[in-house]
Amino acid sequence: MLKVDLNCDMGESFGLYKLGNDEEMMQYITSASIACGYHAGDPHVMRKTVEMAKQSGVEIGAHPSFPDLMGFGRRYMSSTPSEIKDYVVYQLGALREFASANGVRIQHCKPHGALYMMAMEDEKIARAILEAIAQGDEKTIIFALNHSAVADVGRQMGIPVAREVYSDRQHTKTGSIILTRTGQQIESYEEMAQRVVRMVSEGKVITDTGEDVDITAETVCIHGDGPGAVQLAKAVSEALTAEGIEIVSAKHLLGV
Amino acid sequence: MLKVDLNCDMGESFGLYKLGNDEEMMQYITSASIACGYHAGDPHVMRKTVEMAKQSGVEIGAHPSFPDLMGFGRRYMSSTPSEIKDYVVYQLGALREFASANGVRIQHCKPHGALYMMAMEDEKIARAILEAIAQGDEKTIIFALNHSAVADVGRQMGIPVAREVYSDRQHTKTGSIILTRTGQQIESYEEMAQRVVRMVSEGKVITDTGEDVDITAETVCIHGDGPGAVQLAKAVSEALTAEGIEIVSAKHLLGV
Amino acid sequence: MLKVDLNCDMGESFGLYKLGNDEEMMQYITSASIACGYHAGDPHVMRKTVEMAKQSGVEIGAHPSFPDLMGFGRRYMSSTPSEIKDYVVYQLGALREFASANGVRIQHCKPHGALYMMAMEDEKIARAILEAIAQGDEKTIIFALNHSAVADVGRQMGIPVAREVYSDRQHTKTGSIILTRTGQQIESYEEMAQRVVRMVSEGKVITDTGEDVDITAETVCIHGDGPGAVQLAKAVSEALTAEGIEIVSAKHLLGV
Amino acid sequence: MLKVDLNCDMGESFGLYKLGNDEEMMQYITSASIACGYHAGDPHVMRKTVEMAKQSGVEIGAHPSFPDLMGFGRRYMSSTPSEIKDYVVYQLGALREFASANGVRIQHCKPHGALYMMAMEDEKIARAILEAIAQGDEKTIIFALNHSAVADVGRQMGIPVAREVYSDRQHTKTGSIILTRTGQQIESYEEMAQRVVRMVSEGKVITDTGEDVDITAETVCIHGDGPGAVQLAKAVSEALTAEGIEIVSAKHLLGV
Repeated sequence: MLKVDLNCDMGESFGLYKLGNDEEMMQYITSASIACGYHAGDPHVMRKTVEMAKQSGVEIGAHPSFPDLMGFGRRYMSSTPSEIKDYVVYQLGALREFASANGVRIQHCKPHGALYMMAMEDEKIARAILEAIAQGDEKTIIFALNHSAVADVGRQMGIPVAREVYSDRQHTKTGSIILTRTGQQIESYEEMAQRVVRMVSEGKVITDTGEDVDITAETVCIHGDGPGAVQLAKAVSEALTAEGIEIVSAKHLLGV
Repeated sequence: MLKVDLNCDMGESFGLYKLGNDEEMMQYITSASIACGYHAGDPHVMRKTVEMAKQSGVEIGAHPSFPDLMGFGRRYMSSTPSEIKDYVVYQLGALREFASANGVRIQHCKPHGALYMMAMEDEKIARAILEAIAQGDEKTIIFALNHSAVADVGRQMGIPVAREVYSDRQHTKTGSIILTRTGQQIESYEEMAQRVVRMVSEGKVITDTGEDVDITAETVCIHGDGPGAVQLAKAVSEALTAEGIEIVSAKHLLGV
Repeated sequence: MLKVDLNCDMGESFGLYKLGNDEEMMQYITSASIACGYHAGDPHVMRKTVEMAKQSGVEIGAHPSFPDLMGFGRRYMSSTPSEIKDYVVYQLGALREFASANGVRIQHCKPHGALYMMAMEDEKIARAILEAIAQGDEKTIIFALNHSAVADVGRQMGIPVAREVYSDRQHTKTGSIILTRTGQQIESYEEMAQRVVRMVSEGKVITDTGEDVDITAETVCIHGDGPGAVQLAKAVSEALTAEGIEIVSAKHLLGV
Repeated sequence: MLKVDLNCDMGESFGLYKLGNDEEMMQYITSASIACGYHAGDPHVMRKTVEMAKQSGVEIGAHPSFPDLMGFGRRYMSSTPSEIKDYVVYQLGALREFASANGVRIQHCKPHGALYMMAMEDEKIARAILEAIAQGDEKTIIFALNHSAVADVGRQMGIPVAREVYSDRQHTKTGSIILTRTGQQIESYEEMAQRVVRMVSEGKVITDTGEDVDITAETVCIHGDGPGAVQLAKAVSEALTAEGIEIVSAKHLLGV
């Protein structure tokens, strides 16, 4: 039976500021990537999000970022691999403490925003992040794009990699993704959901340039900060179930 | 044989900013209280400080604070116990991750600045901090003033308490301390060192108002950010040794 | 003919985070108190808010705060008058630059959150803020509670004071206000609006303890971050107009 | 008679952290570029620095940066020209308020660190910064490298440009500079000082690749954060004076 993990960015509120609809999203996903205070999230929000995930039976992961609250971690910052490694260790540790306090374990790590994109392209940054993860817990799964530096280095280092696809971004021939503003929008939730189903069941996706390419979908990202996030999550979840695809955590899927 | 722990605030540099003379101080102390990024310290500094402590055979502790870099955590902030607990968990976790990566364990926790003073006076805040510590590791030692809310609540909760005295602050009759600007300065390193020896060997100290009171000195704080910190540390260390008092870590002293 | 100013906190979004419904609120108010980056607001948001206010014919004011983004400036911080003065100068200047670029002038200053409350009670803090304002532009109006340190010191210093009342907070006998959580909620928008009308037309309000006291309402605050802010603004605006009370800017009202 | 301006980064302390030896440097320079709180500096430091410059008869300028305190503004951040413009307006305004309070005017603006380097290379960023400056005060001088986007766009926009050279960085053939770690170190203060004299008097400099190229030196930067900053400033100042070159402010030099 086909299986796939559904993940979403979570805990991106900060102080008085609310972002995302975490409570409703928790019903549909199996992995929550939790902000750790650098691009979003604060200690209070982190604790609440871990508690909520536990209660919903959702696995948690760290969603570390560059220290850029004003830019929501979406801006490339010319940091050294050593700086990046230390940033990831710091954020991972902060989340792990909330996790331990709740008797849960960090299942995965997914770098956020600009750090995610840089790590996919740059082997040194990928390695820095992976070393930070591995030294904390070798069984932590890393989420990575197909054909990315992170996937390659992760495999070399023996770190479990869950290949990630996007429900709401277009993919390129090289396995990367197109950021919202640039890429052509995918038009309806149903269309997005069917595209996800095809990536999971057939291992195929039509790229931004119209080619039909191979892709491996072990975990599917649904962005939580868009206005239609909950509808999209529901559509994807229902479409997968209708096709007999089981939605399970990355941990379960990879047998970690 | 009499024993006592010597502690110092460490890792209070930030980015390009250097503060303290951590490398030299490491020779004299047995416990390093490491800043966790809220009043001082950054991930890079934290890692370096943990590595340096390990190399020097110095035990490490977390030195959590209010989120106030501009005020160096010295300003009272009207936070709720729940906010404070979450802040401490966050900072403890970040440090613990660096500790684990280096194969060392967090020996103790000492709240910083305004958080320290507030916790000593307010039972709810004391409890919030102690809960954060205990849920992470019940054997973590808390550093607390004689006759403080932290010492009382810590004892009730079964958390090991190391009663702390200051080498460079005057003590009050109630066991509290006088902040530098207000209190009469103690004049020489030698005088400070002898005062420490007397606190450890006789359990007595002359307060700011001239009374001779009982005091228990299990750990002695030497501030690391003053210009004469290293000389003071040296003077205290030598004076204790000259009196046959052994300088050991809090962990060893309390047998935790 | 009776006149009154309606003010609202504005520009409290930050980065990706949206707070308040500034565009709609602009229709109802005459004075916008704009966050300056310390408790909320960022340079982008400040510019947009100044532009929006100008376009809506709404006067602008600075809404300076303690540097506490995580606590939204709502936490008392034990800062010195000198620190506070420098903070206000910094924030005022930042806003003034955006104002000048748009050919508008800062009409007023209203300290935010904890800084507002501390200034109302503490003469030294009041003076620090007023000095910061006066050195920039002596005609800047300060918004202050009836019978507050700010109102008193402002008058002594010859700074124009607009006495402020709240549409959605209960007043005390001493002219202060009750924070939401503590005070009994005023139940309906209509009730709130009628209370405002009475404060303006009769100069009377029933306090939290049920007494009927004198109050001067030159500017009425409508909080912008509550869910019903727009409805409340609309209700207050319509009720005032229905009673023949003209809604004008503080500048116009005081003839500054 | 030949003239040149000497500039230095100033006010880069933050909270408890001290950086640079501003008081001593003030004796040697004619233009102080003051940090505005984004990479360094806080309101208290800004005020003190403005007061000190005024007392020393040194002209002041804004030294705006990316919002990156942890990286001291030295990291490239992929920001839009619109974001950058707003950042510069914010920081300029904050400084201008302290300047006005002291009865002084902002003479110049010099972007800091990564923002400086990006602006020199990218015309859109250069324009964004120059628009921010011009809308505040058209007579503000911009400091720019020879043959840079900032110098070109500044001239097109009619903004006064002071062409800047470095006392302690090697220049390239294209008029850019080599960052310390990469470039060969210039060996002695005397050698650095003589190189400055030659840039000013002959309009020539030997580049990092050994070529002798034309260069225009209207303002000379002396970094204030190095350990030998004061000695370097003294050496440069004395060497210029010995050659009969007058050290004057950029304003005086350009006759703005």
